[in-house]
Amino acid sequence: MINRNPNIANIKAGYLFPEIAKRRREFAAANPDAKIISLGIGNTTEPILPHTNAGLLGGASALADVKTYSGYADDSAGFTKLREKIAAAFYKDLVEPDEVFVSDGAKCDIGRLQLLFGAEVKVAVQDPSYPVYVDGSVLAGAAGGWEGSGYAGITYLPCTAENNFFPNLDLIPQNSLIYFCSPNNPTGATADRAQLTALVNAAISKGCIIIFDAAYSEFIRDPALPKSIYEIENAKICAIEVNSFSKPAGFTGVRLGWSIVPKALKYASGESVNTDWNRVNNTIFNGASNIAQAGGLAAIDEKGLEEMRALTDFYLGNAKLIRSTLQEMGINCIGGDNSPYIWAHFPGRDSWEVFSEILEKCQVVTTPGAGFGPAGQSFVRFSAFGHRENVEEACRRLKSNFI
Amino acid sequence: MINRNPNIANIKAGYLFPEIAKRRREFAAANPDAKIISLGIGNTTEPILPHTNAGLLGGASALADVKTYSGYADDSAGFTKLREKIAAAFYKDLVEPDEVFVSDGAKCDIGRLQLLFGAEVKVAVQDPSYPVYVDGSVLAGAAGGWEGSGYAGITYLPCTAENNFFPNLDLIPQNSLIYFCSPNNPTGATADRAQLTALVNAAISKGCIIIFDAAYSEFIRDPALPKSIYEIENAKICAIEVNSFSKPAGFTGVRLGWSIVPKALKYASGESVNTDWNRVNNTIFNGASNIAQAGGLAAIDEKGLEEMRALTDFYLGNAKLIRSTLQEMGINCIGGDNSPYIWAHFPGRDSWEVFSEILEKCQVVTTPGAGFGPAGQSFVRFSAFGHRENVEEACRRLKSNFI
Repeated sequence: MINRNPNIANIKAGYLFPEIAKRRREFAAANPDAKIISLGIGNTTEPILPHTNAGLLGGASALADVKTYSGYADDSAGFTKLREKIAAAFYKDLVEPDEVFVSDGAKCDIGRLQLLFGAEVKVAVQDPSYPVYVDGSVLAGAAGGWEGSGYAGITYLPCTAENNFFPNLDLIPQNSLIYFCSPNNPTGATADRAQLTALVNAAISKGCIIIFDAAYSEFIRDPALPKSIYEIENAKICAIEVNSFSKPAGFTGVRLGWSIVPKALKYASGESVNTDWNRVNNTIFNGASNIAQAGGLAAIDEKGLEEMRALTDFYLGNAKLIRSTLQEMGINCIGGDNSPYIWAHFPGRDSWEVFSEILEKCQVVTTPGAGFGPAGQSFVRFSAFGHRENVEEACRRLKSNFI
Repeated sequence: MINRNPNIANIKAGYLFPEIAKRRREFAAANPDAKIISLGIGNTTEPILPHTNAGLLGGASALADVKTYSGYADDSAGFTKLREKIAAAFYKDLVEPDEVFVSDGAKCDIGRLQLLFGAEVKVAVQDPSYPVYVDGSVLAGAAGGWEGSGYAGITYLPCTAENNFFPNLDLIPQNSLIYFCSPNNPTGATADRAQLTALVNAAISKGCIIIFDAAYSEFIRDPALPKSIYEIENAKICAIEVNSFSKPAGFTGVRLGWSIVPKALKYASGESVNTDWNRVNNTIFNGASNIAQAGGLAAIDEKGLEEMRALTDFYLGNAKLIRSTLQEMGINCIGGDNSPYIWAHFPGRDSWEVFSEILEKCQVVTTPGAGFGPAGQSFVRFSAFGHRENVEEACRRLKSNFI
């Protein structure tokens, strides 16, 4: 008989969001009349806007005509034109098209990226953080054993109210892979230029590589905040960036993202990470859907970028409502200004307990902070993804029912 | 500094198809007037037929309307309706919907499946075989060192003219993961019921798990040949199946496939492989595109299945032309009857040399057999994916220019 990969046995609990969905279903079954509103999972709710949608439709139509039909590409890295447009639209002169790798989304890229560094690499993560950084490291065998509140092989970098949700960089081990997300999921904190400069300098001096998750960069409204790690000097020798069309274009179900792996990024041996990334993707991935890529082309031309702005403005409007409601209730929170997440503090309380209380009293689904790591305890994440009337109703219920 | 994953350094040469594309580009640059015809990579060329395409268009249109918009699913395994329809259309009563996992394609599934078994599992592959089985095992650290013509940790099961392209099952090691593809890529050989029964019995008696790649099953025309491993008794306790919409529906660029992981399949520990597969997918994958899934629903209703039949008939017509041309030329070959590949034998010759000779004399791109494993030496694979007029022209050139 064949053994189970011990790395799978090493993953703790179920993946966070299916667990929340399960608890929601159980609550709904027990309370069939409840009108549940989800401010839990960060899932888009608003339709794709017309110009971008026309791109998707055009991509699908092209496949019905022998003159415009396309199958596999020679290379999994995506349409050359899309790689060029991503480099131009989001990175100006900072990134070359052959440093852009189109994919089926940031989560999938993060799963594959860990393959570049194998089971021996040390891993550091912001705490709290998106569960895939840790779970992906566990699957790759890089996490070490579970020790009650975390993995022995992972360095958790607490991001708390005390440090203004930016970690103490002195905690980062030498030669480690640093997962860093800004605007942050779940805290909503967005690192400023000085903080990111300190991060890049720390990575270079310690021989680290940063995997910079910029999936929420299009929500940044403060022009002083960097949207890409490559706006920081020398980042190209120490950082990979992942990003996605999911949230700004409403593509969560369409599946389209990208990664940037600079040609200047090297392993200890001097070999090119960019070359390996191409090899890994061509080996176990076959490229993003050509329909999704056609949509991506539309999403980042002039009209598409206007639609992206309108869609992110809409969700930021929700975020403002949630944030001001919580503030009126006297609940401390951050985020929601340059990000679609609001991170609310319930000092001294268990976050799953707060999750349950909000669900029961308000029929509103949130995400318990402890699901994102030990430092998430006593926090709850509110997602700004929802229809306006639902967000307004959720805010009314919070104010009237949650004391 | 961070080290390169040693498993990546362990992959030999570039991935086969980019290498062929590179040689083709070099030939084209040196011979700018040559009208090159590709019978190399198995890439679809014919448009998606109207009913199936309407499904894709409907999927894209739905995203523009708030009433039908969808984002992520709660679970990465795909639309419930699509899982049900796949179970009904291709497996009758053999498989349950919750044993079906919708994906972005067979290649990607194969990359993720290896994660279930980790670096310690022994691997056996048909030789020749689709490169991803071996390369995926190398990436997972399960292949051992390179030993000149193969990896120390992989058992190669030669499929040659002498054994009628079905391997000697006695060579399969105890407790190994067996990659088995039928109709086979590249040989085109399709295993019959007796052969698959012997394979299943061997797997059970040796404690093995089969990963059965059925990506070409819709090309089977002989009603006596099984299209799924689950048509064989007891396969559900020893086999995973992967399959794809790529070839039968023209979805190579759309990205839609599925895997079957039976609930009866267990590790040595008795734990469920199905449960782990769901966990792995939810951790590092986010589901197939909802547009592709809408197309998949159309592709397997009554009209869609008729279109699948028409499309596979067309490519089988190409295959017949290629096969009869080679036979008229006195070249021994198999495949092309229940599969879109023809495997042509050039005894005593190097397959890259034959590849080059055909490219130079006929301006026809093929795939050298050695790219699929040591036993592929002296063979060349012809793919039947192409426009009819190109296949006819390629056949004319082969007959007149290749002596």
